[in-house]
Amino acid sequence: MNYISILNILGWIFGVEGVLMLLPALVALFYGEAQGWYFVLCAAICGALGFALTKIRKKSDRFYAREGNVTVALSWVFMSLLGALPFTLSGEIPSYVDALFEIVSGFTTTGASILEDVEGLSRCMLFWRSLSHWIGGMGVLVFVMTLMPMTNGGSSFALMQAESTGPTVSKLVPHLKQTARNLYLIYLGLTVLEILFLLAGGMTFFEASCYTFGTVGTGGFGLLSSSIASYSTYIQVVITVFMVLSGINFQFFFFLLLRRFSDAAKLEEVRWYLAIFFGATVAVTVGLTVQQGGGWLYNFQQSAFQVASIMTTTGYATCDFDVWPVFCKVILLALMFCGACAGSTGGGLKVCRIMIYFRAGIREAKGVIFPRQVRNVRINGRAVDSKVVRATMMFLGCYLMIYAVSMVIISVDCDDLTTCFTAVAATINNIGPGFGAVGPTANFSFFNPLSKLVLIFDMLAGRLEVFPMLILLFPSTWRK
Amino acid sequence: MNYISILNILGWIFGVEGVLMLLPALVALFYGEAQGWYFVLCAAICGALGFALTKIRKKSDRFYAREGNVTVALSWVFMSLLGALPFTLSGEIPSYVDALFEIVSGFTTTGASILEDVEGLSRCMLFWRSLSHWIGGMGVLVFVMTLMPMTNGGSSFALMQAESTGPTVSKLVPHLKQTARNLYLIYLGLTVLEILFLLAGGMTFFEASCYTFGTVGTGGFGLLSSSIASYSTYIQVVITVFMVLSGINFQFFFFLLLRRFSDAAKLEEVRWYLAIFFGATVAVTVGLTVQQGGGWLYNFQQSAFQVASIMTTTGYATCDFDVWPVFCKVILLALMFCGACAGSTGGGLKVCRIMIYFRAGIREAKGVIFPRQVRNVRINGRAVDSKVVRATMMFLGCYLMIYAVSMVIISVDCDDLTTCFTAVAATINNIGPGFGAVGPTANFSFFNPLSKLVLIFDMLAGRLEVFPMLILLFPSTWRK
Repeated sequence: MNYISILNILGWIFGVEGVLMLLPALVALFYGEAQGWYFVLCAAICGALGFALTKIRKKSDRFYAREGNVTVALSWVFMSLLGALPFTLSGEIPSYVDALFEIVSGFTTTGASILEDVEGLSRCMLFWRSLSHWIGGMGVLVFVMTLMPMTNGGSSFALMQAESTGPTVSKLVPHLKQTARNLYLIYLGLTVLEILFLLAGGMTFFEASCYTFGTVGTGGFGLLSSSIASYSTYIQVVITVFMVLSGINFQFFFFLLLRRFSDAAKLEEVRWYLAIFFGATVAVTVGLTVQQGGGWLYNFQQSAFQVASIMTTTGYATCDFDVWPVFCKVILLALMFCGACAGSTGGGLKVCRIMIYFRAGIREAKGVIFPRQVRNVRINGRAVDSKVVRATMMFLGCYLMIYAVSMVIISVDCDDLTTCFTAVAATINNIGPGFGAVGPTANFSFFNPLSKLVLIFDMLAGRLEVFPMLILLFPSTWRK
Repeated sequence: MNYISILNILGWIFGVEGVLMLLPALVALFYGEAQGWYFVLCAAICGALGFALTKIRKKSDRFYAREGNVTVALSWVFMSLLGALPFTLSGEIPSYVDALFEIVSGFTTTGASILEDVEGLSRCMLFWRSLSHWIGGMGVLVFVMTLMPMTNGGSSFALMQAESTGPTVSKLVPHLKQTARNLYLIYLGLTVLEILFLLAGGMTFFEASCYTFGTVGTGGFGLLSSSIASYSTYIQVVITVFMVLSGINFQFFFFLLLRRFSDAAKLEEVRWYLAIFFGATVAVTVGLTVQQGGGWLYNFQQSAFQVASIMTTTGYATCDFDVWPVFCKVILLALMFCGACAGSTGGGLKVCRIMIYFRAGIREAKGVIFPRQVRNVRINGRAVDSKVVRATMMFLGCYLMIYAVSMVIISVDCDDLTTCFTAVAATINNIGPGFGAVGPTANFSFFNPLSKLVLIFDMLAGRLEVFPMLILLFPSTWRK
């Protein structure tokens, strides 16, 4: 294993993190908060550590899939360990495990919180919390790749493959760096656009930025314990639209920008994603209106918000959907696992994988009747490589095993099965709220430190799509 | 499709069912119950229908996987439609959908009941209910195969493959008929042995037979609403032991009978099964004692019973495990999905599949680090065919899709997520009781007819391992 190259990359990551920590320091300066100094201190720590690590002279350029996956997993772990420092040093989140939970929840765009009183945090801390969604949404390594002088094309691809979401990475343009830059430009575009729309709704720049980071990163951290419930219908609709947009495969926007409209329209995953979104919204609206009453339009707006929030794994809420009829809750539960598109900032299994499971399952069932016919699983009109199908299936197996083990460990803290089941669902799918004691009006503070560490692992495993975190546990990963 | 051959086999099935219906008629004769005449009537219907169907002259011997799967699925469906008649004709279960639910629950060895008052049924009906477990446990077609003059060896194999449990059928001896006969002899041996042990505990022959059918068929129907709670510790221990034995791959007993002890000891699935059983029992015992109090020995006995009952998917209960600590309930929930060994009468995913998921998942994760190393999934020291691994993974995908759709449909009848989630778990895994409103002290009577039909489909899909039921829904199955 090429440890030195890994350390070099970690150095770059820490450097970038240090620079990003200066942003909450600026917020503190603006609002006159003394806590800003903790960010300056932590930025200095990150910078010094990063500088030292990048200076280690590497002996070889060997950088393969093993190095790529280990680098990605370690970057996320160490980035979180450093990112949690300001919370604990300032004393605003005294327990380091809690602070780690909060920042991992931020970077992985989960949005699950251990804070009982969000409003009690200073503004710079709130800003850092929200900014972490924005940083984690598109991925840190992809960002570093666009800056770093990479000598080895294979290493960039290994990193991007390990960090981005979905079963495969499609290169939009031949050069990976160019692809990464295009993705970041689209991401930035969405961010600016949403900030403008929120400002138009009467939010301050600070509020607008925080909610935008939470939306386009599909994170879910906000500024109030009541999430989005107290904001105007206009704000709620704007956030709904941007949540849906942020859950779309960014390839779609790329095609739109290049005016390749027919290519964009051919992306089956985006079509399925929108179909599921509208279908679920209509079903939930009907369920709400029939079983609970209320106006159709109001219920539709509430349904659309909650469905978008859960499906894109953002986790904002405009109402306590834990008290909704079970029919509506089951649909939300199914969406928790479905998730958004591959190649978006959203979590969950991804629509693309659901399509592969669906089509491969039907193919297998047909194979039982007609064993001699060979069929491929096709997506966007092209056959999916059988290795990708296999990896997608195995992903599900590993995911479910992590799920079961996590449930057993955290169950000692739970008063009911629903809480236990959805606490894991909400973290491993990077959503935020679940049902029961981890519902939209509750938080994760009641878990013991061991359970919190398990849920931290689940959030990282969910964001990095299982394998990079899993291989950290194998002894063979660390052998020569 | 060779419809005539399918009808011929259905004819044999109906004939066998008719003969079996005479057994509850004998029980009625013994206890002087007039309801016995309904069984005589239904037996006559089955016999006449069966005779007519077997007389249709077939034009060809073509009988492939498609015919095999369709035959198995249709046999189970029509056998249930006829088997439900005595309940409804006698008026003891007035609704035909309820009667169908009850008999499908019997044949599929689920044990979920719609009866609010089990004790209100006449003895011949109770006997038929329990006997259906025994009939369904080993499979009806396998039994018919041992009687029927089959001209085509391929057809027998296609039938056995479609009806027996687990990812593959291993032929114990070269001749399939001989294999089937051996399996039935082992099954009969277990049955006789348990009846003797229960008689020794003071049960009447009627009671002993009914509980034995429920145990060796891993069904779970009993004679009392309180299940096994009111019986002596001796009876509870006997049932625990026989539940565990009935969940073992029958290949194991076959090796034991031939004194091939080393072959028996090499069966990895049996070792895993016993390890999971003991591990879970210990964990539940600790959980119960620490979180709820009580004596270690008593808790161990209760844990062993409940763990055996859930893991083998029998569904008997000696206590209301719905009020157990969440830690214990999560373990039971995991066991609901794990299930017993392939090649046993138990349901669930089967230990063998869990082993394949586990090993294939680790192989895939290692493949991420070392892409050039090719590894096989090995079980019992031999490589598992990659097609079997693929089919096992696809099984999981189809299973989960049926699961999700079922949950959405039945959710309109549920007051909480736990009930909705475990009602499907309890039926698709052929267990019987779940948690919440379908817990061990409750029943399935509150579901509306549509939900009941969905759960009936789930029970059949679980017993026949998804694909045979799924292909009934494809138009291409029915095309020339």
